[in-house]
Amino acid sequence: MKIGFLGLGQMGRGMAANLVRAGHEVTVWNRSPGKADDLVSLGATLAKRPVDAAGGEVVLSMLADDAAVEAVVYGAGGIAGAPALHVGHSTIGIALADRLAADAGEDRYVSAPVFGRPPAAEAGKLFVVAAGSGVALDRCEPLFEAIGQRSFRVGEAPSAANLVKLSGNFMIMAAVEAMAEAMTLAEKGGVPRGTLLEVLTGTLFGAPIYQTYGDILLEDRFRPAGFAAPLGLKDMTLADAAATRLGASMPVLGIVRDHLRALIAAEGPDIDWAAVALSVRRGAGL
Amino acid sequence: MKIGFLGLGQMGRGMAANLVRAGHEVTVWNRSPGKADDLVSLGATLAKRPVDAAGGEVVLSMLADDAAVEAVVYGAGGIAGAPALHVGHSTIGIALADRLAADAGEDRYVSAPVFGRPPAAEAGKLFVVAAGSGVALDRCEPLFEAIGQRSFRVGEAPSAANLVKLSGNFMIMAAVEAMAEAMTLAEKGGVPRGTLLEVLTGTLFGAPIYQTYGDILLEDRFRPAGFAAPLGLKDMTLADAAATRLGASMPVLGIVRDHLRALIAAEGPDIDWAAVALSVRRGAGL
Amino acid sequence: MKIGFLGLGQMGRGMAANLVRAGHEVTVWNRSPGKADDLVSLGATLAKRPVDAAGGEVVLSMLADDAAVEAVVYGAGGIAGAPALHVGHSTIGIALADRLAADAGEDRYVSAPVFGRPPAAEAGKLFVVAAGSGVALDRCEPLFEAIGQRSFRVGEAPSAANLVKLSGNFMIMAAVEAMAEAMTLAEKGGVPRGTLLEVLTGTLFGAPIYQTYGDILLEDRFRPAGFAAPLGLKDMTLADAAATRLGASMPVLGIVRDHLRALIAAEGPDIDWAAVALSVRRGAGL
Amino acid sequence: MKIGFLGLGQMGRGMAANLVRAGHEVTVWNRSPGKADDLVSLGATLAKRPVDAAGGEVVLSMLADDAAVEAVVYGAGGIAGAPALHVGHSTIGIALADRLAADAGEDRYVSAPVFGRPPAAEAGKLFVVAAGSGVALDRCEPLFEAIGQRSFRVGEAPSAANLVKLSGNFMIMAAVEAMAEAMTLAEKGGVPRGTLLEVLTGTLFGAPIYQTYGDILLEDRFRPAGFAAPLGLKDMTLADAAATRLGASMPVLGIVRDHLRALIAAEGPDIDWAAVALSVRRGAGL
Repeated sequence: MKIGFLGLGQMGRGMAANLVRAGHEVTVWNRSPGKADDLVSLGATLAKRPVDAAGGEVVLSMLADDAAVEAVVYGAGGIAGAPALHVGHSTIGIALADRLAADAGEDRYVSAPVFGRPPAAEAGKLFVVAAGSGVALDRCEPLFEAIGQRSFRVGEAPSAANLVKLSGNFMIMAAVEAMAEAMTLAEKGGVPRGTLLEVLTGTLFGAPIYQTYGDILLEDRFRPAGFAAPLGLKDMTLADAAATRLGASMPVLGIVRDHLRALIAAEGPDIDWAAVALSVRRGAGL
Repeated sequence: MKIGFLGLGQMGRGMAANLVRAGHEVTVWNRSPGKADDLVSLGATLAKRPVDAAGGEVVLSMLADDAAVEAVVYGAGGIAGAPALHVGHSTIGIALADRLAADAGEDRYVSAPVFGRPPAAEAGKLFVVAAGSGVALDRCEPLFEAIGQRSFRVGEAPSAANLVKLSGNFMIMAAVEAMAEAMTLAEKGGVPRGTLLEVLTGTLFGAPIYQTYGDILLEDRFRPAGFAAPLGLKDMTLADAAATRLGASMPVLGIVRDHLRALIAAEGPDIDWAAVALSVRRGAGL
Repeated sequence: MKIGFLGLGQMGRGMAANLVRAGHEVTVWNRSPGKADDLVSLGATLAKRPVDAAGGEVVLSMLADDAAVEAVVYGAGGIAGAPALHVGHSTIGIALADRLAADAGEDRYVSAPVFGRPPAAEAGKLFVVAAGSGVALDRCEPLFEAIGQRSFRVGEAPSAANLVKLSGNFMIMAAVEAMAEAMTLAEKGGVPRGTLLEVLTGTLFGAPIYQTYGDILLEDRFRPAGFAAPLGLKDMTLADAAATRLGASMPVLGIVRDHLRALIAAEGPDIDWAAVALSVRRGAGL
Repeated sequence: MKIGFLGLGQMGRGMAANLVRAGHEVTVWNRSPGKADDLVSLGATLAKRPVDAAGGEVVLSMLADDAAVEAVVYGAGGIAGAPALHVGHSTIGIALADRLAADAGEDRYVSAPVFGRPPAAEAGKLFVVAAGSGVALDRCEPLFEAIGQRSFRVGEAPSAANLVKLSGNFMIMAAVEAMAEAMTLAEKGGVPRGTLLEVLTGTLFGAPIYQTYGDILLEDRFRPAGFAAPLGLKDMTLADAAATRLGASMPVLGIVRDHLRALIAAEGPDIDWAAVALSVRRGAGL
């Protein structure tokens, strides 16, 4: 398929590479063009403006935040009005997703945020959460297969996928917070964190989320950041905006946002979001 | 082994039955003796007072709360001073566990709370979390094998096991709360709860806790109560007392305790603790 | 002084009238011009566009939210670039205040949000919280005297005044929340709310905030809304954005925002923000 | 009147002295008798056991906590069964108050906790919050006049007074927490705490609570403790127990309890409860 890919950060590079490897004809664009070198040597074409990558069937975007997506769609050289079906992989707010969908028109915009860290993007093992019209989603299927291990369809309104993504990120942060609180309590009572973790994962909590983040918490492995705290705070703030817009009360979300703010205030931005555990431990005088 | 078993509620009956089946010589006691009939026909002996069940090597107790344990140990006909090693399976506070340990003396008291619901007790599939001296724990090993699928040793101070149990129950309640908040947000945005749950358990949250409680939340299956809200509130209050005693800050614990109180105030005591989801949904006007 | 006044809502009408009465030459503008009739008969001139009211020495604005201020400043016919000193009375976020200050240049923008409800605006009894350069504030002094009973200077950066205003509104909402929690606890224990309130205001809590809102809570006097819940939620969300921007952890703010969301979800938007008490009472099964 | 007074701590000494000065015939008792010297030289008689001070018309008690009250009433030499009307001034839980009332019988027990710090006790300027039968309260009236500037009758069940006292202490702590959050936000934004406080107390928050604690927060005047953090945590835990017993949801109470725990964990017990502000500031990286 003739496609475009916008945004070659840690995630985007791996995703675009897998699309090239799957045999698609890929035109890539990035704000700072140097990031495209590897992809070009792999066979991709480099575009000067976002719109130059949107002349094919589909254009996929994987950008940092709402502002970056707005710039790439509505800014100078943006893809608004371009013929390609736009597939938004970025973690953005539901208000922007609704706007993108309304402006693009039926069958022309799909939200497809992903779960997984950079190594999963590189390995084509992401989970893709997609929403949009059935027609549009069918067209995307081969692309999702190239980048992911599994895809889910969660609704016809594209913003449904963004809502699921934000809910999932909230669930991750909530699990980290609860684990941090329990580990801190245990530690103050003389039970090593590792002992508690072993019992938890050996009984009811044997899921990747507890194994992955449990190890991070066990070893205080917060730098370099796998997922930086300010990005985590951004996502939690998007979830908060969704809660306000939709009318939901989410007290645990309030707590994790506060702990992320406290974390960044104390430690600076270059730290993993799982380090909310430090805010929790500080609350116990550790 | 010649042993005693105190407390024949939903959990205790299954545990005692498995001990009989494993070939141990079991004397049972319960506050209301009628509960013992099945066990007697299985081969157990019925005692009139707790102390009458504590003449063997080990006496195990599985009771509702701190007050019930205090009565059975220190009350009239209680086991304080009896020769048997006392194995406390009840979910009690760390202060009482410390007191039981101090009064019993070295190698004479073990805390061994369990994870699992009544069907797991019946099937001998509990998880046993044990703490105490190595000598005492070694003596208990064949008993733990009879009642559980796996046991963990978490420390030498018996109260360490109670702390792990309370931490685990907190983790369960925190996971239910987070799931309820995420499901409510999704539902208000038009994404069915089941869709969110499918994505969660299909990606990072594929643990028994999310599968079991996810189904309960999906179907609002809160009555009859598998684990009643007042018992859940009791456990969370014990965790809170541990946090105060040990000096830990646990904001998520504060939230789930509030939601349990709100739940019981609105729905009465005969409801599962997972129904905190109702408190969450009410906060969204549902 | 030759001045302009933008925004003739419940608050703005009273403020503009007092400026006319104080002898100033006032040109007014409102999005829907009908609201200006009373002021015109009092002696004010009606302008067609915001910029037409900004030809004098000072132009004051009192608008609903950030978007309204942005429209009036940067939109078609807006006051950006007009000669008059702009005095912003609206409750807006600190980011927008910083932008207005940077764009207007030194001595050309003052933030001066007010405390007080419509009757206080009408009576010229507002409290004015102002920030900006000393030169600019000196020029505003006679205007502040016309609309308020007292003014405070809180800094040179205009956004300082907005931060104080948002902090003050947070304090009000926090006091209402605490009072609602205490009253609900008392009521569940058989102590009438009025009895508790009498003790509080008769001892340590004898401030206008407790007397005014205490009476509202006592009588559940939430409709018609004196200050509507969605406006309250908007202000608390601006305070939350300030906390994120400045790096502060504010757990009580998280709670009141959640209760406002729950309130609006359950009762609709036409209700006073003090009705968070209903969310609190609902949490007690009342 | 012939009366007894039990408990000669910082508060009790001042109260007992005022009773002597008012002309009552006072027998005093304290666990460590040395504290009574000043009172004896003022004309009081020293008793060896609590019951020896309970032979007159009324016996008043002012003790540290539930355990101290239980010891003085039900312990060896305790006043249970003594002829005097018992007036409990201590800040105790509602469960114990209910028990004291039930055991004493009608007209024989009054709860009368007080608001005010040691200097107010010395000056006879306490606020007395009383509950009990009308007959019993009438008998106490001259005693309340001797120790307080004003008394309130809040119900017939003695525990009503304890509930009001706990609610009031919660309100104080909630006001301190909110003030600390607002001051921290302001300070991070460049507005001095004192400036914010001046605006608050000069507008809607001109009550003793904000003036007294505002000054303490302004100057970080937390040592020596006027009211020590562990006593504050004890009271908040009694309020929490009341919330559980009565079925009320109190999220702000959860926050202040967490901050008190964090405070004591970080700073030790010898610090004023208003130092929760330190927990708040730490959450902002200050």
